[in-house]
Parts: sequence; structure tokens; C-alpha cells
Amino acid sequence: MVDKALGGAGLRGQVAGQTALCTVGKTGSGLTYCGYDIKELADKVSFEEVAYLLAHGELPNSSQLADYKARLKSQRGLPQALKDVLERIPADAHPMDVMRTGCSMLGNLEPEADFSQADTAIERMLAVFPSILLYWYRFSHDGVRIETQTDDDSIGAHFLRLLHDKKPSDLHTAVMNTSLILYAEHEFNASTFTARVCASTLSDIHSCVTGAIGSLRGPLHGGANEAAMELIEDMKSPEDAEQTLLAMLARKDKIMGFGHAVYRDNDPRNAIIKEWSEKLADEFGDTRLYDVSVRCEEVMWREKKLFPNADFFHASAYHYMGIPTKLFTPIFVMSRVSGWTAHVKEQRANNRIIRPSADYTGPEARSVPAINER
Amino acid sequence: MVDKALGGAGLRGQVAGQTALCTVGKTGSGLTYCGYDIKELADKVSFEEVAYLLAHGELPNSSQLADYKARLKSQRGLPQALKDVLERIPADAHPMDVMRTGCSMLGNLEPEADFSQADTAIERMLAVFPSILLYWYRFSHDGVRIETQTDDDSIGAHFLRLLHDKKPSDLHTAVMNTSLILYAEHEFNASTFTARVCASTLSDIHSCVTGAIGSLRGPLHGGANEAAMELIEDMKSPEDAEQTLLAMLARKDKIMGFGHAVYRDNDPRNAIIKEWSEKLADEFGDTRLYDVSVRCEEVMWREKKLFPNADFFHASAYHYMGIPTKLFTPIFVMSRVSGWTAHVKEQRANNRIIRPSADYTGPEARSVPAINER
Repeated sequence: MVDKALGGAGLRGQVAGQTALCTVGKTGSGLTYCGYDIKELADKVSFEEVAYLLAHGELPNSSQLADYKARLKSQRGLPQALKDVLERIPADAHPMDVMRTGCSMLGNLEPEADFSQADTAIERMLAVFPSILLYWYRFSHDGVRIETQTDDDSIGAHFLRLLHDKKPSDLHTAVMNTSLILYAEHEFNASTFTARVCASTLSDIHSCVTGAIGSLRGPLHGGANEAAMELIEDMKSPEDAEQTLLAMLARKDKIMGFGHAVYRDNDPRNAIIKEWSEKLADEFGDTRLYDVSVRCEEVMWREKKLFPNADFFHASAYHYMGIPTKLFTPIFVMSRVSGWTAHVKEQRANNRIIRPSADYTGPEARSVPAINER
Repeated sequence: MVDKALGGAGLRGQVAGQTALCTVGKTGSGLTYCGYDIKELADKVSFEEVAYLLAHGELPNSSQLADYKARLKSQRGLPQALKDVLERIPADAHPMDVMRTGCSMLGNLEPEADFSQADTAIERMLAVFPSILLYWYRFSHDGVRIETQTDDDSIGAHFLRLLHDKKPSDLHTAVMNTSLILYAEHEFNASTFTARVCASTLSDIHSCVTGAIGSLRGPLHGGANEAAMELIEDMKSPEDAEQTLLAMLARKDKIMGFGHAVYRDNDPRNAIIKEWSEKLADEFGDTRLYDVSVRCEEVMWREKKLFPNADFFHASAYHYMGIPTKLFTPIFVMSRVSGWTAHVKEQRANNRIIRPSADYTGPEARSVPAINER
């Protein structure tokens, strides 16, 4: 009975379906999208090419990519009713609640009437999610109504432009591009599985993505880069980092940004974002956050044989680009919407409603007592 | 390989966790909530008692019930920002998209800051969901801004009052009460499982319910009572119903409202709502819809050994109460939120993140071609 309960808990290791999109940890450390290794993708292509790959199964050629990017660029504007909604969300709201509500409202204004409209809806979400986040953020925090239809060349540059009100540097644009690639897809993680369960009822794609955002919001899932930032921001030096971590380990505190449910030896995304974080530190002129992060990596490996996952060096990288900590997880949304929606299409193409069973542990059959006998 | 794929499809028969809330079809036909048979609950208690039972594991005594109902009654009002959002949703929006967006916006305005606030958030959703739906419906369809804080004694009566602008009859109040009981809970169905996957990331309860609404929206899940209404509304007589169904069966059309994924012999909710539908037909003075429904039941059993599920006689029952067809599935939300949220609490109390595996069916490892070689 105990074994059975543990076996069912979290569905760990149980096959819940098929996918052609991604492998995670097949060799203990690998990550591939549609057969391409994450390192090679991060080195050679743009996030837009990855999003196209996930949506269509193949990388675009030059003319396909030009058309795709032109469509994305043209769809960054917000309908007035969506602006009105975003203006009514308080400044102290959780930014993931803003994304969830913005996506849901978009589904009212521009519904996916039937599944033939899926690609149109997907491209619109990719294009407009940075606009949704930053229209709310800049209105609620700075009191300005920004124009979200910009002519930046990429989704990453668009995001940075709306945040900082100026054209981002080439370095920052390149880092955002890589970051969006690293977070785009990760097989049957909890938010993607949420999207697939929703898709399995043949619901619309905005419902699937809205639900996925809600799952990604959870601290066991999407919030790890924010938690990593909170960990490192007060560390004054590598020596301070070492003392802080040793004290936390002695107290058995949970340390976010290390280890992974699937990877055993390393997270293949870590080396990639770590390299960018170092470059950003050099450009920024104050390498403290990078240096303490490196020391954390050394200490965690030496003491616990735990490695940094994708989230850990993202914290310093985002911080060096002037991104407020509370916007870290919404960036994950802007990227992962490419993976979620690819899974929705895949689920629809070979669907059976996802309806598992439960072990019953409740009361035996009983009769309803009269209210004065309870 | 094929067997493995089918075995994983939809997780059918795979245990995804434990529950003390519900059994479905344990004897082939039974449905129990916390050990109580659905028939006895529908005969003897109110929906508010069932909602309390699901939230707390035991039926309330008189003073607990009085306090609970007083709290629910006091929380029917809408914050201005939520009214503003609802006023910006078009009249032709899908009412389930309205519920999804309304719930998500509520989570921005009144967030569950930590899990100790779960019961507070649950009671608020139970109280305010009819208000969300009907504020939007009456504004977008009738051009009026209704006052949603009413003093009706029950959630069912509150709903009917807001819809029709008058105190509902005792018969209609009793039918709504029964209907809400019948739809309150159903183990690990797709929307409830969505809520549990979301809860397993330790996300907030509004995210869980928003996701569940999105899954219930799917035509394979919550939309069956609407589809049943569309089926019967044009049937002029029992004879016409018989001819229509026989022609549909000959064409192998899908007929909604019959059969069930778990029940084998009958759906225990059917006899209960069927009896109320007959009473409503007599009161209404035109029994056509009830009569054609009875003939449909006879034909489907005779021809296909398929029985009506909970949705089928709900169609005529709701119609006799003057409820527009497109509001049928949102009533399901008003009821099932009691079950969804009970599952969220249960998942949190013994949690492991729900993260299944996938069978990979995609391309073998490959190298990224240069863009001019694609």
C-alpha cells in the first residue's frame, strides 16, 4: 500500500504520452529540441528560429524566417480592452498573475475559434506577451502608458526596449536571445503537462496556456531564478558566499537553483548561461554577483555534489541587464509559451482525454445524519 | 511499442495520487462524496452543506452551517476593478472564458498570500462566481449594471435571482440546489486533475481554479449538457426524436450526454435530475423537452445499450428554468469549484510535484544546418 502510494505520487517515471519535441537527460545530461542539442542551438540560432522549430518541427529557411519574424514584429500592439484590464491590476500584484490574466483576457478578445487558428494564436502570444507584462509594469510602477508596437528585431530586444525605454546593446540582446532559447522547452514538466491535460479536453489554446502559466507560477517550478537572486544579492564577496552557504547547509535550509529532478551530473543549460553572465559582469564593471555565484557553485559541488541548474546563473545575468527580480519568471513564460503550444498541437493531433485514477483513502460508506445529530 | 503507447495514453487506469474525497463507480455505478452516497445527499442536504463537507471532511452542524452560509452570503459583491474587467469582455465571448478571466482577475485583487488563506479564498470563489458570470452576462446582453450583493438564502437562488431579476420559485431553488450537488465532485476528472497538477507546484489557489476552468471548457469535458440541449431543442415530438436519433446512429454521429468513461450500467446522477426535469416540465405546462428526452433515453438503450449521464436531463431541466444554453457549463463551474478546491487542499497536504515522463518519438540527434542549407 505504501509502495503503491509512493509509486503513484507525482507520476514520477510513469509515461503519460508521447512527444517528438524534446529529450531531457537521455544520456544523463542532454537536452535536445526536435533532435538538436541545446548547446548547438544556443550557439547558432535565434530564439525565433527555435520557436519556429517547435511549432513546425523543422528549422526555418531564410525566407520562412523573414516572414515569421515580420509576422511576430507586426503583432506587438495591445487592444484597448486589454490595456484597460492591465491598468486595473495593482502594482503589488504577482507578475505571474498579470501574465495569467492577460493571456486569459486575450482569449476573450481574440479567441481561437477552431484548431485551424492555432498557429495564428501562437504567434500572437509570442509577439504580445512581453507587451502585456511591460505595459502593466510600466503603468503600475512608472505611471506611463507605453507604446508596445516597436520595431526591434527580436523578442528579446523588444522586451528590453519596453523595460528600459531605449534600444538594448548587442550584448544584452544576445543574452536575452540565449536565455529565451534555454527556457523554451523541457518535455513533460508540470506546466507543460498542465497544458496537455487541458488540451486533452479539446479546450482552446488560451485556456491551455493560461493554465500552464498558473502552474509555472509555483515556487517548486518557475520561481527558482527569483529565489537564486534573493540568495545571492546580499552576499558581499566569495568568502561571504561560502560562509552563508555553509551556515545554510548546516541548518538544512533549502537552497534554490541547484540540482534537478531529471539531470544527474549537470544541467546542460548552466554552462551556457554562466558564460554569458561572466561577459555581462565584465561589461557591467562590478563582478561581485558573478564571483559569488561561482563560489556558490564550488561550495555546493564540494559539500553536496549538487550542480547549478539553468536558473542559478540566470539570476546574475538578468540582474546585470537591469531586470527587476520579480520579472524573472514572466521571462520564462515569454519563452516557454513556444514549448507549451507545441505540446498542445501535439496532444490534439493524437488525443485521448487525460483522466487518471486515484487511490481512495476516505471514509467507508456512511449514512447522512440529521443536522441536529451532527 | 504500440501497447506501451496506448497504455500511457490518457493515463487511463493509472493511479496519479490518493484522495479521501470521492469514489466513482466503485460498484460499477456508485458515486460518493466523503463516504456519503450521492442520492442520499441530493435527498437530504443543501449544496452549501456539500461544499462544507468537501472543504472540511464532515457535514456541518446547525451552527457551523449558519455561520458558513452567512459568510457566503456576505461575499457576493464585486470589486470595482473586477466589474471594469467584466464590462470589457464582449457579448459574444465564450462564457467559460469569462469565468476563467474573472477568476484570474480575482486572484490579482484578492490574492491567496499563503496557504493559511485557502479557506477564505475558497468561500469567496463559491460566493462570487455567480456574480462574475451574471454581471458580465446582464451587462453585455441587457446593458444593465446589476447589484450582485443579494440576500437570497442559497447559491442556487442567488444565481437565478441575478439571471431573472426576481426571487426564484421554491421548485426552481430546489432544482438548482440538487444540480449543484450533483456536479460538485467527481474524483480525478481532467479539470480536477489540472487543479492538482497546478497545486503540486505549490502555486496559489486562483491559478489552480483558473486552470481547471480552462480544462472544463473543453467539449470532451464540461460542454456535454450544452450539446445535449442542442440535440433535443429541435425535436418536435418523441416520434421525431426517435427518427432523428436513428438517423444519427446510422450516420455514426457522436451523440452527447450518453455513456461515461467510468460508469458501466448507469450514471447515478441521472435518475435524480430526471425526476426534477419531469416536475419542471409539469410546472412549465409544456412537456415536449422532457418527453423527447425520455424517448432519447429509450432509443439509446435499446439501440446501443448506452445510458444518459448527468448531463442529459440537465439540459431540459435548465431550459425549463429559463437558463440560456450558453450558461450551462458555467453553472458546472459554480458547483465544481467546491470539489476542485478540496483537491487542491488535499494535494498540498501530501505533495510531490506531478511530473510524468514521455515516450520520445522525434528525430534522432542531428546537427544544426546553416540557414542557407535548409
